Amino acid sequence: MQAFVMHNIGETGFVEKEEPEPGPNDAIVRPTKGLVCTSDVHTVHGAIGERDDITLGHEVVGVVDSVGDEVEDFTAGDRVAVGAITPDWGSLAAQDGHPSQSGGALGGWKFANVKDGIFAEYVHVNEADANLAAIPAGVADEAAVYVTDMMSTGFAAAENADIPMGGTVAVFAQGPVGLMATQGAALQGAGHIIAVETVPQRQDLARTYGADDIVDYEDGDPVEQILALTDGEGVDAAIEALGSSTTLEQCVAVTRPGGTISNVGYHGEGEFVRIPREEWGVGMAEKDIVTDLCPGGRARLRRLLRLLDTGRVDPTPMTTHEFAFEETDEAFELMESKEDDIIKPLIDFTQGQ
Amino acid sequence: MQAFVMHNIGETGFVEKEEPEPGPNDAIVRPTKGLVCTSDVHTVHGAIGERDDITLGHEVVGVVDSVGDEVEDFTAGDRVAVGAITPDWGSLAAQDGHPSQSGGALGGWKFANVKDGIFAEYVHVNEADANLAAIPAGVADEAAVYVTDMMSTGFAAAENADIPMGGTVAVFAQGPVGLMATQGAALQGAGHIIAVETVPQRQDLARTYGADDIVDYEDGDPVEQILALTDGEGVDAAIEALGSSTTLEQCVAVTRPGGTISNVGYHGEGEFVRIPREEWGVGMAEKDIVTDLCPGGRARLRRLLRLLDTGRVDPTPMTTHEFAFEETDEAFELMESKEDDIIKPLIDFTQGQ
Amino acid sequence: MQAFVMHNIGETGFVEKEEPEPGPNDAIVRPTKGLVCTSDVHTVHGAIGERDDITLGHEVVGVVDSVGDEVEDFTAGDRVAVGAITPDWGSLAAQDGHPSQSGGALGGWKFANVKDGIFAEYVHVNEADANLAAIPAGVADEAAVYVTDMMSTGFAAAENADIPMGGTVAVFAQGPVGLMATQGAALQGAGHIIAVETVPQRQDLARTYGADDIVDYEDGDPVEQILALTDGEGVDAAIEALGSSTTLEQCVAVTRPGGTISNVGYHGEGEFVRIPREEWGVGMAEKDIVTDLCPGGRARLRRLLRLLDTGRVDPTPMTTHEFAFEETDEAFELMESKEDDIIKPLIDFTQGQ
Amino acid sequence: MQAFVMHNIGETGFVEKEEPEPGPNDAIVRPTKGLVCTSDVHTVHGAIGERDDITLGHEVVGVVDSVGDEVEDFTAGDRVAVGAITPDWGSLAAQDGHPSQSGGALGGWKFANVKDGIFAEYVHVNEADANLAAIPAGVADEAAVYVTDMMSTGFAAAENADIPMGGTVAVFAQGPVGLMATQGAALQGAGHIIAVETVPQRQDLARTYGADDIVDYEDGDPVEQILALTDGEGVDAAIEALGSSTTLEQCVAVTRPGGTISNVGYHGEGEFVRIPREEWGVGMAEKDIVTDLCPGGRARLRRLLRLLDTGRVDPTPMTTHEFAFEETDEAFELMESKEDDIIKPLIDFTQGQ
Repeated sequence: MQAFVMHNIGETGFVEKEEPEPGPNDAIVRPTKGLVCTSDVHTVHGAIGERDDITLGHEVVGVVDSVGDEVEDFTAGDRVAVGAITPDWGSLAAQDGHPSQSGGALGGWKFANVKDGIFAEYVHVNEADANLAAIPAGVADEAAVYVTDMMSTGFAAAENADIPMGGTVAVFAQGPVGLMATQGAALQGAGHIIAVETVPQRQDLARTYGADDIVDYEDGDPVEQILALTDGEGVDAAIEALGSSTTLEQCVAVTRPGGTISNVGYHGEGEFVRIPREEWGVGMAEKDIVTDLCPGGRARLRRLLRLLDTGRVDPTPMTTHEFAFEETDEAFELMESKEDDIIKPLIDFTQGQ
Repeated sequence: MQAFVMHNIGETGFVEKEEPEPGPNDAIVRPTKGLVCTSDVHTVHGAIGERDDITLGHEVVGVVDSVGDEVEDFTAGDRVAVGAITPDWGSLAAQDGHPSQSGGALGGWKFANVKDGIFAEYVHVNEADANLAAIPAGVADEAAVYVTDMMSTGFAAAENADIPMGGTVAVFAQGPVGLMATQGAALQGAGHIIAVETVPQRQDLARTYGADDIVDYEDGDPVEQILALTDGEGVDAAIEALGSSTTLEQCVAVTRPGGTISNVGYHGEGEFVRIPREEWGVGMAEKDIVTDLCPGGRARLRRLLRLLDTGRVDPTPMTTHEFAFEETDEAFELMESKEDDIIKPLIDFTQGQ
Repeated sequence: MQAFVMHNIGETGFVEKEEPEPGPNDAIVRPTKGLVCTSDVHTVHGAIGERDDITLGHEVVGVVDSVGDEVEDFTAGDRVAVGAITPDWGSLAAQDGHPSQSGGALGGWKFANVKDGIFAEYVHVNEADANLAAIPAGVADEAAVYVTDMMSTGFAAAENADIPMGGTVAVFAQGPVGLMATQGAALQGAGHIIAVETVPQRQDLARTYGADDIVDYEDGDPVEQILALTDGEGVDAAIEALGSSTTLEQCVAVTRPGGTISNVGYHGEGEFVRIPREEWGVGMAEKDIVTDLCPGGRARLRRLLRLLDTGRVDPTPMTTHEFAFEETDEAFELMESKEDDIIKPLIDFTQGQ
Repeated sequence: MQAFVMHNIGETGFVEKEEPEPGPNDAIVRPTKGLVCTSDVHTVHGAIGERDDITLGHEVVGVVDSVGDEVEDFTAGDRVAVGAITPDWGSLAAQDGHPSQSGGALGGWKFANVKDGIFAEYVHVNEADANLAAIPAGVADEAAVYVTDMMSTGFAAAENADIPMGGTVAVFAQGPVGLMATQGAALQGAGHIIAVETVPQRQDLARTYGADDIVDYEDGDPVEQILALTDGEGVDAAIEALGSSTTLEQCVAVTRPGGTISNVGYHGEGEFVRIPREEWGVGMAEKDIVTDLCPGGRARLRRLLRLLDTGRVDPTPMTTHEFAFEETDEAFELMESKEDDIIKPLIDFTQGQ
């Protein structure tokens, strides 16, 4: 089969690979739609180190091709969403409520990390009964593919932020995860959502997803702007959806004592992420800093799909571009250059088939 | 001043009373808009025992008339919402996170219970800095008055229900508290909301506030209908907004193992409220039963007012009737008869002034 | 192999059965020590309905005999504790944090319920990596066997009770689960533990495990006694470790507004378990009623074994009698008659081998 | 009256001051026993900036001398513990569950910060009903004085750490707060407590309070030592009780993914407190960082006093030195030099009276 891989750091391309076989608890899925993630580009640049022809990608929906003997709830032909994170559900971390950390830090992240990813004609899914979810008939593949990572991660940022009903929230950066954090904050009952973003198109989408105010970095210090918008009180919760120490510092500064800083940004650089000591109340202001990796699992996927099925969320406006599977390299190039106002490129595996 | 009182069980009317004086921590408020609550009618019928010319009512907004020497944040002329529940914030229960229980079970409920209520020309408010909230300029009194009880109680039902993002919820009874529980469930990220209600007008409002499906008692057993709507799984959370043992039993029956039954109904009759033993998993199915009395307090009121100010909630469609203060007895009569499709009657203290 | 079974309701005895084989994720364990549980006796009496020669028992430690191909962390010869509850960790309920409810209400309870139990020469354990735990070298089998159910269940009662540091707790009934709830309350930082029990030997053990006061049913109404011991305030938390509606009613009555009633008693009789309406604050006193079934899983077992290993808990004083495997019927008879001050009978599978 | 004050940064001494008068909600307390805190010494060195003859100290018990008109529960002659933190209980932060942050970051900390402290013949206490607690007859003043700060702060560190029953905990630094965090971890059901400390006397006390293992900085990298003691897994929770970026970094490094870092150390230096990026799992390993300032309030004080009354905790071994009130300067000198193995010096206001 064809697979779009990272040959090694900085080099990508298509290769021919053997079709995967399912173990007793696994499934093989034929992708229909996938999405390219900024983290895929980071991976190609070496963020997680060297790899050897590993298949890229982790956001996908498709059709079950075959299942292992122990799989009970799925069978060939089922339309399914595949979690970007596919935990080992019996692991100690999963038993303790941290499935994304199964087998070690970020251990639930397997696709394009410790095994082949999803930009291929067939995809191997571990613990299929636990890591797949049936897509409801009324939900299109191009919407469903957003539950696998963007909605799950962005919403988790909002859920972890412990937003009180009617509370105030600042969401730093309105990339697809930040946009879904904004949407998530609205779905958690926030009363005032401030989105921090400079790109006009993303500002517009932020408003669509629930932002009441936009703070533009180019208009001055975002901390001062947010404090001004909250009568100097600061927000109940700040969400870091970029992955920069500077942004986390700003999150701490704008959060009221007793509030929460919720991080889902991937911090890719530097030895330290810094907490500003005084704004943190010298370690006593009850400003908690919490983090998450995209929650996976069938129960989660089912619920996020329900939000699509009952029409509460529409992620498809984030899809700015569309490519056939054999054009995946072009999608990567555009994602890297961030040109043409790209937010999310959709890979359509069904084109030309 | 004039006050609308319960002379004794079953008898109401207007009486002349002395204007209240504020203690050092208190305020006196001149009402502008109030709402009649079903519980006011229960009180008149003797639900909380005999009273002697106690002023009725507990849902009100108005203007500060005077404040005590220790009050710092309010002054005469401020437009304010008054919490229906006005806790003693230094009490042991409040310190433990249960302000509505300050000084004993339901001890935060003072208006028309242990002191004069709000259907009067002047209203005494204890701990004014903690129990009043300024109404934003953009929020009208007739909307703001809903935060004092209906929104706070209904939303609490949803918050306590521990609804997972995209989860399923059944809300039993769509009176004003149930309607706000439905709205609250939507604001907590529910993915599928089932409202149980028989009255067509209330069914329509339930849809407005976020219900996806309506279950009508008259169409058969609501337990069976809800199980059918959830593929036999039951809901993640069930909300009891009526106050009947039968309804609570149905809530237990429709909730999946590991789910939550959230009660805000006032259970006014019988020696026992019953849990169905088998549906409760013989006491081992992790179906928790949680309860609440309307949360009060300035922090809560401010946040609920913010939801009105940013346009996320509009409670005014629940106001089906309007009366001048001197017509309060007519409002009570209608609330008692439940005729004319009444949901909430608004008392306008400013008419004729 | 020999197995001690329930032939049908009311009839027990030994039968010869085929040795079980492990599926790919499973293990076969040779028991060394087991305990008889009161619920085994209930099962024989028909509490969960008719069965056909099902092997009894669910509390066991032993040695791994063989494992399936997918098992990674255990191998033949390992000394292991087997959870009484052996969840399907990939199930929806487990993903939602309720593994004991996997596959339906109480679905994690498999031994002597939906499959053969542990009073046999070989025991089949599903999802071995997730449901077994290695016993530390310093912990004896006769102590370790208590983590499989009694400690896990009793401690869960205390953990769910949400006891504030220094808080007050009443534990109703001091059978082995109640005794471990008492111990658990002490380990959760309770400041005042009141144990309700009539049997002198159990009262003594309750003091050993942390009870400050004993309330004896025979000395009068336990509700009045507990209110007297708490200056009329009631307790922060009440634990139901018996399984009777009367006891649950008393738990509600002695719990302060805002407190928690934590149920681990198996309610085996009646159509309803009753909540006393007025003591429950007419459904508004924030007295939550929470329930649990014994938590299983390797992570849990490991932690409970650690408490034995560091000497913080000694459950062995609860073992009042000891029998060889072939005398299991005598143990059941004694457990049924409750004669001879029995608390827990240990079955020693190694005697006579 | 005589008061021991900070004249200005670096200078202390006794001055004559007017006796304080109670406002309507306040009380005046005559101290009997007080404790000097390391933070008092920091204050003298300028940690919170310049002050002008402010009375020092915040840990005290005594006898009520007089109360304001609105005070209901205390009267002259009552033996009371005074919270080191005396929140405004009606404030927004307190209503949101963060009383120590009332009125702004660390706003509940008033003594020797924004008003006179407790090393004086009379002490003014705001909101007396909420911020005092009666000392049980069986609890001596010299024990009771520890609930006001050391026990409340140290225990909070353990409570916030979210320690699972039988879990593993590392407590960094065994000063009085760290020692009480160690004791608190034991009272939260920890199964393995590792105390990090170099001073032999403090190591011994750590063992007394529940530490299973001692890690000595002087024996090598504490991170490596703690990982070795936990089979490379790291701990479920790490407690920072020193107030140093280096220590916080070590806490992050030794905590397993999904675990909690609980900070109660006062971070007094540097622009930033640093999180080690990789050990923090690039912001995705679900290692939450939570903080607290000593919880105050009557409900808290009462519960901590109960732990003394039922004999579960004995803080008095931490009292290494004792001084009369007029020798307070000597106590400060010794606390500064840390000579003579000092842990806590007790000030006895009753000597010589």
